[in-house]
Amino acid sequence: MPSPQFKEIKQCYGFDEVALVPGDTTINPEQINTDFTLRDFTFAMPFLASAMDAVVDTRFAVLLSQLGGLAVLNLEGVNTRYDDADSVLAEIASIPDNEVTTFLQKIYSAPIKENLIGERISEIKRAGAICAASVTPQNTKLFAPICAEAGVDIFVVQSTVTTAQHVSKSYQGLSFSDLCQIMPAPIIVGNCVSYNAALSLMKEGISGILVGVGPGAACTTREVTGVGVPQVTATMDCAAAREYHLQETGKYVAIITDGGFRTGGDICKAFASGADAVMLGSIFAQANEAPGRGYHWGMATPHAALPRGTRIKVGTTSSLEQILFGPASVTGGTQNLIGALRTSMGMCGARSIKEMQRVEMVLAPSIKTEGKFFQAQQGR
Amino acid sequence: MPSPQFKEIKQCYGFDEVALVPGDTTINPEQINTDFTLRDFTFAMPFLASAMDAVVDTRFAVLLSQLGGLAVLNLEGVNTRYDDADSVLAEIASIPDNEVTTFLQKIYSAPIKENLIGERISEIKRAGAICAASVTPQNTKLFAPICAEAGVDIFVVQSTVTTAQHVSKSYQGLSFSDLCQIMPAPIIVGNCVSYNAALSLMKEGISGILVGVGPGAACTTREVTGVGVPQVTATMDCAAAREYHLQETGKYVAIITDGGFRTGGDICKAFASGADAVMLGSIFAQANEAPGRGYHWGMATPHAALPRGTRIKVGTTSSLEQILFGPASVTGGTQNLIGALRTSMGMCGARSIKEMQRVEMVLAPSIKTEGKFFQAQQGR
Amino acid sequence: MPSPQFKEIKQCYGFDEVALVPGDTTINPEQINTDFTLRDFTFAMPFLASAMDAVVDTRFAVLLSQLGGLAVLNLEGVNTRYDDADSVLAEIASIPDNEVTTFLQKIYSAPIKENLIGERISEIKRAGAICAASVTPQNTKLFAPICAEAGVDIFVVQSTVTTAQHVSKSYQGLSFSDLCQIMPAPIIVGNCVSYNAALSLMKEGISGILVGVGPGAACTTREVTGVGVPQVTATMDCAAAREYHLQETGKYVAIITDGGFRTGGDICKAFASGADAVMLGSIFAQANEAPGRGYHWGMATPHAALPRGTRIKVGTTSSLEQILFGPASVTGGTQNLIGALRTSMGMCGARSIKEMQRVEMVLAPSIKTEGKFFQAQQGR
Amino acid sequence: MPSPQFKEIKQCYGFDEVALVPGDTTINPEQINTDFTLRDFTFAMPFLASAMDAVVDTRFAVLLSQLGGLAVLNLEGVNTRYDDADSVLAEIASIPDNEVTTFLQKIYSAPIKENLIGERISEIKRAGAICAASVTPQNTKLFAPICAEAGVDIFVVQSTVTTAQHVSKSYQGLSFSDLCQIMPAPIIVGNCVSYNAALSLMKEGISGILVGVGPGAACTTREVTGVGVPQVTATMDCAAAREYHLQETGKYVAIITDGGFRTGGDICKAFASGADAVMLGSIFAQANEAPGRGYHWGMATPHAALPRGTRIKVGTTSSLEQILFGPASVTGGTQNLIGALRTSMGMCGARSIKEMQRVEMVLAPSIKTEGKFFQAQQGR
Repeated sequence: MPSPQFKEIKQCYGFDEVALVPGDTTINPEQINTDFTLRDFTFAMPFLASAMDAVVDTRFAVLLSQLGGLAVLNLEGVNTRYDDADSVLAEIASIPDNEVTTFLQKIYSAPIKENLIGERISEIKRAGAICAASVTPQNTKLFAPICAEAGVDIFVVQSTVTTAQHVSKSYQGLSFSDLCQIMPAPIIVGNCVSYNAALSLMKEGISGILVGVGPGAACTTREVTGVGVPQVTATMDCAAAREYHLQETGKYVAIITDGGFRTGGDICKAFASGADAVMLGSIFAQANEAPGRGYHWGMATPHAALPRGTRIKVGTTSSLEQILFGPASVTGGTQNLIGALRTSMGMCGARSIKEMQRVEMVLAPSIKTEGKFFQAQQGR
Repeated sequence: MPSPQFKEIKQCYGFDEVALVPGDTTINPEQINTDFTLRDFTFAMPFLASAMDAVVDTRFAVLLSQLGGLAVLNLEGVNTRYDDADSVLAEIASIPDNEVTTFLQKIYSAPIKENLIGERISEIKRAGAICAASVTPQNTKLFAPICAEAGVDIFVVQSTVTTAQHVSKSYQGLSFSDLCQIMPAPIIVGNCVSYNAALSLMKEGISGILVGVGPGAACTTREVTGVGVPQVTATMDCAAAREYHLQETGKYVAIITDGGFRTGGDICKAFASGADAVMLGSIFAQANEAPGRGYHWGMATPHAALPRGTRIKVGTTSSLEQILFGPASVTGGTQNLIGALRTSMGMCGARSIKEMQRVEMVLAPSIKTEGKFFQAQQGR
Repeated sequence: MPSPQFKEIKQCYGFDEVALVPGDTTINPEQINTDFTLRDFTFAMPFLASAMDAVVDTRFAVLLSQLGGLAVLNLEGVNTRYDDADSVLAEIASIPDNEVTTFLQKIYSAPIKENLIGERISEIKRAGAICAASVTPQNTKLFAPICAEAGVDIFVVQSTVTTAQHVSKSYQGLSFSDLCQIMPAPIIVGNCVSYNAALSLMKEGISGILVGVGPGAACTTREVTGVGVPQVTATMDCAAAREYHLQETGKYVAIITDGGFRTGGDICKAFASGADAVMLGSIFAQANEAPGRGYHWGMATPHAALPRGTRIKVGTTSSLEQILFGPASVTGGTQNLIGALRTSMGMCGARSIKEMQRVEMVLAPSIKTEGKFFQAQQGR
Repeated sequence: MPSPQFKEIKQCYGFDEVALVPGDTTINPEQINTDFTLRDFTFAMPFLASAMDAVVDTRFAVLLSQLGGLAVLNLEGVNTRYDDADSVLAEIASIPDNEVTTFLQKIYSAPIKENLIGERISEIKRAGAICAASVTPQNTKLFAPICAEAGVDIFVVQSTVTTAQHVSKSYQGLSFSDLCQIMPAPIIVGNCVSYNAALSLMKEGISGILVGVGPGAACTTREVTGVGVPQVTATMDCAAAREYHLQETGKYVAIITDGGFRTGGDICKAFASGADAVMLGSIFAQANEAPGRGYHWGMATPHAALPRGTRIKVGTTSSLEQILFGPASVTGGTQNLIGALRTSMGMCGARSIKEMQRVEMVLAPSIKTEGKFFQAQQGR
């Protein structure tokens, strides 16, 4: 007699475990549509830039908007704590590795200046760009009206894990359904990773959900707290919630997979897992125009008592335009992301992101070692 | 026709294979209760320190008790073989790697001085601390009365594998049910890893069970003997026995997962696997106050004929208080363990350890390689 | 209640995950027949050489034909873009690693000279060899008549992914059923990896299918686009289509597994997965006679906007004859491939490739580490 | 509709994937019986030494017999090709790595001297030891009578894969049932790895079966030919055949797992997989008394056309007696194998090898990384 089981453990998958299967029909890349729609906004590419200080400042936000994507400005980082944020960012890039955690903890202990919130939004809007900006749930009640007044186009509420209901005695937050009433802009909330959590958030009336806990390059949430769900499963579960919610209510809530991408291949797999768009951090931090100057760090890194993450060196490889549209000068899949996505969709026979979500995906455990095998033989 | 199967092989899991899923509700860390109760004792933190000479001496035991945890003193190590144990421990720390196995075999061949047993217990008690002390099953009959007389608060019987029934012609041990009669203190027994073995021990009337064979950092039991069950499955199976025993008898026996922890994340996963408390060795051996002086070794290492384990260098990273409560100056999950546990429980929506045991856990094979990926690109 | 699943994910396998089971009868190697038949052609060995510039030029094609195999000449590489292709190949081998992607992009931007197509085919035919040559689907309509006129023996249409139906507005291709009407030679098409895609191609009337997307040593399709199916599963699925098609129509279409081979063992596993023949790239690129001069690169490497692959150094290990027939001077499985195949078939009790397809295969996760274990002990 | 499956692939396991579960009762090591019985012979330890030139010569055979085990002398190696085999062995140990394959091919091309067959057997017998000796199936018809006349105690017929039926036109072998008639000694045959192959051999009337294709430290059969089944599954399948055969005929055929062992833990797992005895190569090659002088090579290494394996350096760690009985001076599980086996059996509650075969075994994927984790932290 087998012993009774304490609990069920479901198998999950990340990008490394899966691969896409070519379709029965192939399509020429130029026949393919990669549009991403969020309520009234349609973007030519389904790419968002992470609300992280190493990735998005006002200049980067304007540039990505011009190129067809959407950058999210973090309203609780250096851009709203320092008038001259750029000097602070330059200083972070110059600090040696062994001092950087302490230095970041100090930098991020400066108070947020409320006047800078509106100012940063206006900077982006004045340049003619679509402006998305993010706050944490704790500060939503306070900052949301300021953002609305400044004319934010898309409002993002984001923390490591965000749920429709939060228990606290230290602050009284705003419910997302109340937020939806007072905020004219579409609202994106995250992060979450499960069917139930996603469905609860959708019922509040929001427009998009950020999917991903623990996968990012600059994040150690999984090591520190054990919490994290691999991105393929997390995206699939939240996409299943989207389908159910659509069927029940007729409303389509966008699934935005956030974090853990290393190559164009990973991005393609996110769409095949059900994503409507992806949010990129490290990959965009490699752009010449990124404020991180070749470095990247998570927004939980500066936590005073429990830092989760570290500053990593990602380098600056090329312009943002080359990262997005090529031509690629490297062959590892980190440049010409739009070209890679179109090529992948063409091979899989997907005319649109919606069709890409239905492409066959398989578990492909084989790590690619052929190249290493033949190279290693040379070394003998 | 497939060939008949010789035996069934059950799939097991360790900390590396699993991850925790955030809850549908989140809770602020300060709303969370991490109490651990063992019969009449309640501890503010569910952490025990291993009965290993590199981790616990009388001073460490007093310190951890003051901070809210429970240290177990090994009554068959250097502390009861040598009047001046501290000098011996200093000497062990100074021996070169290639001589250490032989040196430990010599050090541990000195006889146990019975008078030191009572003395060490009294030292801890006199300082106002709760005193837990451990013996092996072979010596339980002889040492238990001495411990009881010295007023031990919690009595631990521990060997690599301990069962309710042991077959031997060389000594006649004490049955655990007899021991429960003569020992006023709550009794913890271990180690075990299976449902049946745990249930048999519970029926003897003990108060707690140590779970884990072979996972510790300083232990090579699995290499030498092939024996060992990964900690997630071992904890789940023993927790299933606890639930069955509770239902049958109304008595709650504590499950204490012992060994194999590297980070706060591993600890959080043990609770989600069903643990009531965890016993930490290597992590506490890193404290400035640990008697091992930056080294750690298993209690099977000095075995005269079949040493299983080795002395490893763990270093001294910070004070015990900082390991437990932070602030963390590192981001890898080895400091501020209580902060990490509270943060994890908050993300998972668990108000208590009991609720943490019910949190969803998944198989998450993805090794986190994003950071390495981007760093490696720099090296090219 | 478990959450609904967004999509099914099938488990796939590559060469590393499987191993062959010895048969209940064993056969002496000299009793074994390794013939490969493609319509009217029978080859003494079931090995094709890849249509890659580092592997096949006209001289290599003649040599392999004389030894009993079949080389495929790429009609869109340097051999048809340059009159003196050999000088260009020598130049590629001399370019430093960091300049090679850009250099290849330049080399392959030169136009294809139509007159060279017929000329290269004639060179091979004049030497008395069987001539196979490949074009991409885009150019099939234009180049097929030239090839037919030049007397090509076997005509190959190949791109990363080729399907029976392709959607494009930039060019109007030739349907494979039309191609089968106008081309007297047997036609091989590829690459594909799935049951449905393979079956659709078979229904067009072709004679062979190349199986494999993303596995080759010099290819990064999987990193860049996420697309790829491990070769064991891909071969099994296409072989299942072959069996179905044979049963329905009486026509046998050859399954040729293309890419990802490192050793004789991998080749043997391909046959046990259902292959009728294998196409080798890197292994043949190691021959002294290979045009790559110890280097190897994929035909997607020179892509102007999205290079997928890189030049790798494979070295020149021995003559093509020694690679095929031994004697092996190395023990890692890269020489005497025919000897290895015969030995493997003998141990598995397979008299022919057809019987080898029915040999039992198992999932064998154990990586061979014994040798490394004992060597590593020495290093301590 | 899922595509039809070409063939089933069964999951197999090796030593690395499994671990043993402690029993519900524990037993003191001195209560344990490790006897191994082969027809009329009973050995105090269930260990055989491999019929490999680096492991067994006549002196080693006598020594192991005196210690309670059984060594098998290879009658087709240097001991029967050279009068002064010892000098040849010394020479092999002195050859540089890059010349060794060629040198071994030359050494093993010398003819077998039939007179040396009887002489070597007599040397062992004269010393009062039990003598086991091995030949290949090709030479069995010729050499078996010589061995019988010389009084061999146990006769072994061994090749990489041996089956009850072999198809050949180059030689007419002896059927095993005929061999059983003419050979008075018990016969061991191998190697095999599957239920059906083992059962077929058992029906011929033999006394023991060697299990294992491809796992040994000095063997590259799996790389070269793709053939090989991991040892846990191979042993379990052959043990299932033994149980069936016993039930049908009342005859018990010994299962001897051969190859792939690195530590005492691996050996313990073989017994839990159903083995009656184990055959050790590399571990015994490490003895001071082993003829390999710190080196080890497989008997397929010198193959003239298809060498499968290589000479590896294993070093000489201690005397054979210390490897078997300790005391261990290392903690990694390569010394005191009998002590390790008794300790393991005691923890698992097994009084005999027969009981050890019924011990619970689990799939334990966790690689032990705790020690490395804490050591690595020091390196930072």
